[in-house]
Amino acid sequence: MNYLTYIPIWEKLNQLQQDMLMDSAVIRRFRKGEILHNGADDCTGLILVVSGQLRAFTISDEGREITMYRLFERDICLFSASCMMNSIQFDITIMAEKDTEVLVISSEVYKSIMEVSPILANYTNEIMASRFSDVMWLVDQVMWKSFDRRLADFLLSEANIEGTNILHITQEAIGNHLGSPREVVTRMLKYFVSEGLVRLSRGVVEIIDEDGLSKWNKTKR
Amino acid sequence: MNYLTYIPIWEKLNQLQQDMLMDSAVIRRFRKGEILHNGADDCTGLILVVSGQLRAFTISDEGREITMYRLFERDICLFSASCMMNSIQFDITIMAEKDTEVLVISSEVYKSIMEVSPILANYTNEIMASRFSDVMWLVDQVMWKSFDRRLADFLLSEANIEGTNILHITQEAIGNHLGSPREVVTRMLKYFVSEGLVRLSRGVVEIIDEDGLSKWNKTKR
Repeated sequence: MNYLTYIPIWEKLNQLQQDMLMDSAVIRRFRKGEILHNGADDCTGLILVVSGQLRAFTISDEGREITMYRLFERDICLFSASCMMNSIQFDITIMAEKDTEVLVISSEVYKSIMEVSPILANYTNEIMASRFSDVMWLVDQVMWKSFDRRLADFLLSEANIEGTNILHITQEAIGNHLGSPREVVTRMLKYFVSEGLVRLSRGVVEIIDEDGLSKWNKTKR
Repeated sequence: MNYLTYIPIWEKLNQLQQDMLMDSAVIRRFRKGEILHNGADDCTGLILVVSGQLRAFTISDEGREITMYRLFERDICLFSASCMMNSIQFDITIMAEKDTEVLVISSEVYKSIMEVSPILANYTNEIMASRFSDVMWLVDQVMWKSFDRRLADFLLSEANIEGTNILHITQEAIGNHLGSPREVVTRMLKYFVSEGLVRLSRGVVEIIDEDGLSKWNKTKR
């Protein structure tokens, strides 16, 4: 199976361009927890997710993390190919959140086609605008939303991604998603327990009142 | 004078494309404090700064503001033409920070050229990547830097932009740049006064110890 057909504009590229991309693409598999890409100096190539799930995050000087966005099946990551564009001046780390299979596309080949193909260049523009929107949403969250609402939002979004209310996630991992110390997460989760919204056990957060959590998130206070 | 030559790739466009852009472009002037563009529904067109200074910011539901980036002479703003791309899903407001002259370029004309010209499409990619880098810097600041260091950084950067240590700026305006309530700004500025770093008078913040403020900003605490 040619996973490059996951790219929506694939059929609009000419035969030569398709052949160049196919020849340059390599399947790679990563175990849950493995790092695929680490910072702007590391020009891994474009990453197309075949199956599994990736997390893109940044790390502070002190080693704290915050999630920028997630990548699911058929998503493409540009920032793992930051050498492709001069103006990308930031570091992003990408980790497998589940066992993940990806297609890595050579940055040089992609760039050389983008330089002559307005179709590929405009498609790239759309991907970047879409990630930009994710990060603007994040700015909005961290600037204006209180931590309890961000946590409620995160738990509901995880339940939605996983398709279950029983979330196998450590409190430290939650902190790394939200850019908050584990203690802050623990305190707020305990408060949610006392409100009857969630139940905690080792490495598990179970949502027992989805409606309540959802209302919590929406209430303006 | 044809200000479109400010676009670095101008000479690489063909005659027809240059003519189309020239015919679509309109000079507009804005007074300090005027809003040029307001949110994603408002498709103003691409804005090329001829002279003056613009500020791009977002506004919370409660009306608080935070500056995303500044635009100076020869800079181009894409997000004022958000109808150009489907994936731009956020609202940005653009205000004149000084009396400003801009060239407004039609979104439809720009888009129609971008669809056939890889040169213009790739140039647009570079602009977006550059703004993306600005916003990633902002995320880093608001997540990991304490408010005193962000304030010190902001004052030094303003002094650098204005070319003077005497800044005509209200404490409320500083709050709007940094996404913080005025009271928080006032408290920290008073602390800087007590440390001998700045002097305050009505509508003015004067930096009297640039080195001290600069060290303040760099000290890890």
